[in-house]
Amino acid sequence: MVFSFETPVRWVDTDALRVVHYSNYFRYVEAAEEELYRSLGFTFKDLNEKYKIAIPRVEAFCQYKAAARFGDTLAVIMRLGERTEKTMKYDFEILRKADGELLCHGYLRIIGLDLVSWKATALPVDLTRKVANALE
Amino acid sequence: MVFSFETPVRWVDTDALRVVHYSNYFRYVEAAEEELYRSLGFTFKDLNEKYKIAIPRVEAFCQYKAAARFGDTLAVIMRLGERTEKTMKYDFEILRKADGELLCHGYLRIIGLDLVSWKATALPVDLTRKVANALE
Amino acid sequence: MVFSFETPVRWVDTDALRVVHYSNYFRYVEAAEEELYRSLGFTFKDLNEKYKIAIPRVEAFCQYKAAARFGDTLAVIMRLGERTEKTMKYDFEILRKADGELLCHGYLRIIGLDLVSWKATALPVDLTRKVANALE
Amino acid sequence: MVFSFETPVRWVDTDALRVVHYSNYFRYVEAAEEELYRSLGFTFKDLNEKYKIAIPRVEAFCQYKAAARFGDTLAVIMRLGERTEKTMKYDFEILRKADGELLCHGYLRIIGLDLVSWKATALPVDLTRKVANALE
Repeated sequence: MVFSFETPVRWVDTDALRVVHYSNYFRYVEAAEEELYRSLGFTFKDLNEKYKIAIPRVEAFCQYKAAARFGDTLAVIMRLGERTEKTMKYDFEILRKADGELLCHGYLRIIGLDLVSWKATALPVDLTRKVANALE
Repeated sequence: MVFSFETPVRWVDTDALRVVHYSNYFRYVEAAEEELYRSLGFTFKDLNEKYKIAIPRVEAFCQYKAAARFGDTLAVIMRLGERTEKTMKYDFEILRKADGELLCHGYLRIIGLDLVSWKATALPVDLTRKVANALE
Repeated sequence: MVFSFETPVRWVDTDALRVVHYSNYFRYVEAAEEELYRSLGFTFKDLNEKYKIAIPRVEAFCQYKAAARFGDTLAVIMRLGERTEKTMKYDFEILRKADGELLCHGYLRIIGLDLVSWKATALPVDLTRKVANALE
Repeated sequence: MVFSFETPVRWVDTDALRVVHYSNYFRYVEAAEEELYRSLGFTFKDLNEKYKIAIPRVEAFCQYKAAARFGDTLAVIMRLGERTEKTMKYDFEILRKADGELLCHGYLRIIGLDLVSWKATALPVDLTRKVANALE
């Protein structure tokens, strides 16, 4: 299964080439990730406050195929990649909704970060189980 | 006296009209404010950590006259406006360095915020005195 | 009548004080403006391409009352203020949806900009009439 | 040889975890790339206007090791990786200047884009030769 999230391109997301700035695709993916967790009853804030854990990215990759422009609505598709006790990989694709063209694809690898020791730690089982249930 | 800060327009600051997005002028002014404090031996972080005080904006205003573009270097000019025990106003102008054209001008009003009670409080005298010495 | 637009606070919108950075409220208002035009069958791009007109801001003002945080959903309320042939003012309020607390309020004044001469020009009547119908 | 560029962390670059948002490291790298070209007498704008060519990213990758915070000054180190007629790879590292700690490293691969046909094209030899002279 996949998680799917739609977002319009905002004017401020574009640059002087009249296309979305490449760094902003990572922001669309993060919005999708936030909505995935929200749909599962989690937020980054809950993780910080209840578990004293953050889930920063240890790797981010994107390959760009075509440009998004103002006026486009984008679909961000999230899939679950390989997992370890401490890490979880999200594969993503971003498509232009109107014609389904693949604009870019890539992945994020997140890690559990203990906010007391500020060291890598296991991801909360509650989080990984819910994400796996939703995406596998 | 004034505080003057120069910054190039970054590609990511522009939008599909090929000019700097209007919200980014406020970011240039904040960069100038950060450098003003740095020149006086302060940072926002010091204020947060040493004084348990933050200095959020209570008002922000900008009037736009002409557009900045990628390739421009901008000069942000900061002046000190009226002060109260709890607030301080910065008047700013942003000019294109190459020809001195005024691109926009406006102001920010900052307030002391007690980070324990999260209520308005007096600005640290140490801060206001140093800023006044530098800008009056 | 008013135009109302809801948006979640994104993680990237927050800063190290754990609140939304003040410049981002202007971006929420712009998202609301984009959705207002979309609801009326317009986009900034249409204005640029069909009318050779842009509608940059000549003034932006915001007064901040309380902070938005990650996890909040915001409601942006837009009202139409005074109009001239060349300008249109939008008054806005941003509320926290959960409890209706007013977080900030302000205005934008937009102007017609002829993209050929790059000079101020009348706003397209088609735009102002539709906006007036929707907001008056 | 390498190209080295220093930048302070701006307040707006941080997020509610009190560290730099991961997408912003790509923006620091782009600032370094802009300054590299500026040092060689080029800008993105010149490429667009003189050569009718843009140089979008086709791949972006970053591995994160440690967090940058407000108050840090960062050093972005750029190296030239493999080249083809149409593409050029930049390897980058971002270090905290105060102690030299490696915060993240990764790469960008840029491609020549013909702005008339909007198709991949050879990078201008003038650009690649100057970059190679500076970085090899």
